[in-house]
Amino acid sequence: MPHNAMPPTLQTPSPLVITMGDAAGIGPEIIVKAFRDAPQMLQGSFVAGDVETLRRAARAVFRPGEPALPVAVIDAPEQALQMPPRCVPVLQVGEPLPDMAWGRINAQAGAFAAQSVQWAAHAALQNRVRAIVTAPLHKEAMSAAGAPFDRFPGHTELLQDSAAKFFGKSISDMPVRMMLANDALRVVLVSIHVSLLHALSAVTFDNVLETIRIGHHSLVKVLGRVPRIAVAGLNPHAGEGGLFGREEIDVIAPAIAAARSLGCTVSGPWAPDTVFMRARQGPGKPGEFDLVVAMYHDQGLIPVKYLGIDEGVNVTLGLPLVRTSPDHGTAFDLAGSGRADASSLLAAIRMAQALSATISPSHSSDVH
Amino acid sequence: MPHNAMPPTLQTPSPLVITMGDAAGIGPEIIVKAFRDAPQMLQGSFVAGDVETLRRAARAVFRPGEPALPVAVIDAPEQALQMPPRCVPVLQVGEPLPDMAWGRINAQAGAFAAQSVQWAAHAALQNRVRAIVTAPLHKEAMSAAGAPFDRFPGHTELLQDSAAKFFGKSISDMPVRMMLANDALRVVLVSIHVSLLHALSAVTFDNVLETIRIGHHSLVKVLGRVPRIAVAGLNPHAGEGGLFGREEIDVIAPAIAAARSLGCTVSGPWAPDTVFMRARQGPGKPGEFDLVVAMYHDQGLIPVKYLGIDEGVNVTLGLPLVRTSPDHGTAFDLAGSGRADASSLLAAIRMAQALSATISPSHSSDVH
Repeated sequence: MPHNAMPPTLQTPSPLVITMGDAAGIGPEIIVKAFRDAPQMLQGSFVAGDVETLRRAARAVFRPGEPALPVAVIDAPEQALQMPPRCVPVLQVGEPLPDMAWGRINAQAGAFAAQSVQWAAHAALQNRVRAIVTAPLHKEAMSAAGAPFDRFPGHTELLQDSAAKFFGKSISDMPVRMMLANDALRVVLVSIHVSLLHALSAVTFDNVLETIRIGHHSLVKVLGRVPRIAVAGLNPHAGEGGLFGREEIDVIAPAIAAARSLGCTVSGPWAPDTVFMRARQGPGKPGEFDLVVAMYHDQGLIPVKYLGIDEGVNVTLGLPLVRTSPDHGTAFDLAGSGRADASSLLAAIRMAQALSATISPSHSSDVH
Repeated sequence: MPHNAMPPTLQTPSPLVITMGDAAGIGPEIIVKAFRDAPQMLQGSFVAGDVETLRRAARAVFRPGEPALPVAVIDAPEQALQMPPRCVPVLQVGEPLPDMAWGRINAQAGAFAAQSVQWAAHAALQNRVRAIVTAPLHKEAMSAAGAPFDRFPGHTELLQDSAAKFFGKSISDMPVRMMLANDALRVVLVSIHVSLLHALSAVTFDNVLETIRIGHHSLVKVLGRVPRIAVAGLNPHAGEGGLFGREEIDVIAPAIAAARSLGCTVSGPWAPDTVFMRARQGPGKPGEFDLVVAMYHDQGLIPVKYLGIDEGVNVTLGLPLVRTSPDHGTAFDLAGSGRADASSLLAAIRMAQALSATISPSHSSDVH
């Protein structure tokens, strides 16, 4: 397998890469804030992006009376491991960008953001980085960039494409699952950006079982133990014994049984309207489950976002690389003000570190 | 119209009836707790049920050192208005029940609970009571009771049947909508107990418009002003401009426009995964909307239940009567212990009082 060509020595942890995101958005600012506010956690991380854009971001978040934040140029990922805390190592991806307006759609920024993600995907597939954390890109800017970037709706598809090319496979052989996590709840989705009608037909034995398995393997890494997984039903009251739909009986319950026979600790199908409440953890309320498998996009995202989106993390599961991102966009209205909140990015970095902490060089436990 | 045959004098507010629910469940206990803990609010309310069952419940919640809670027999709703605070007025519906085991399915209890609801519906349709609050009944007990009770899955269908008979209409001419409300959020549902596939086909122009109108008229009464209504989309990201489904463009947006032209303050279709978060109100967070119209059962119930179900209220809208209920069941495991929590019942009573406060004798503003 090509990605075993460069086995890293396990003694040296490989660095973590943060892609810069759209240069006109808040990505560069929240990245330098993360290096400033959590220097220990960011040790060994670097940015794939544009050096001058990161320097501009460092000036935007500068607070009088504090030492300026140094932005250092590196040529190879490994150099990030030698950097002192608080220093922002940047690996220049492609040609330097010109100075551009904050908060405006810019084709050049769109193309650059996409190239940074492709660079990072390649580095991860070659095991030169342990994980990728992506700052937000702007869909319209990427579309304005024209071919080949305009055919990718977002990060997930860019990463899927890179992985498929790397292994000489087709996109359809690179199934991905989206996991959303915050302090209260984790959900993993059977399907994402399709109509609800289309999502119904994606509730198949294979898709549900694969989602449980992917969720199980990922959370074993995060938690260091077998996760307690709950599977939501599709219909109200999980079908009430077949009265309001039979998917629970014909599809979901058999997939749960199959996952259980593979060693997963998994239960359900549970009534969708209470399973997320039961899984939710908070002060004085331990959650009943570590992860809920949601049958469609909004079933999982409504509860994850209900309490707010500042701390949410988006995790791409199923690909032979680790990728997390904050659960927000480029926030063009805030860009350049220095006021954007880095909490979600920090949570994404923490999650990426956990997910990649025990990964074997070939990521074999991830692709089973 | 028959329900105008007995116009009440507006000077005398009519009483509010609480149906006892299943005698073997927590209904009787939470009712006497409500009279004990909120005597001022309960003034003018009475119970439609079984006198001895309520006396037994009063003993179950008795706390040493406090005066016992008197249970008084009344013969007509009006007598409830003369009762002193803390006294529990009970109107005996049908034959007295024998003493029965707590927490067991009992056909006699099921039949009695259903009869109490039918009695209350009739009283409301005749304007002898201003509103109905229903304590939980047990579906299996009602089913065990046999014909005619076994064909009603729950309260809503019992009430719908009573109203249809009263007006000589068919059930299909008595559309109902379910509203769920707690301190943080109110939602009203386009459809309830059908499969998700069936729910998709219930998203029609007429159904969405009717749901907005019913929600509008009800909340005008609760809030005393025009409510700000948000309509959720059906598909992820509300269809992303037609990319993930066209219901938002073809059905939901036109229904919103029609409702707006009728005087409703309504917006949408909004992305389902953030509209409930935006509507949620809490300490330091005013909600953006007073009500969210949800396209299917779990879209609305997942966020309403996410923070817990102790304070939730279920409101039946659309019928020519006011009915609310706590958002929990008979809790057979707690019955008889005196430990059941009356908060949700108290919230249901408060909501019923608000909904019936300005109702005209013919309920004309409710049926438009």
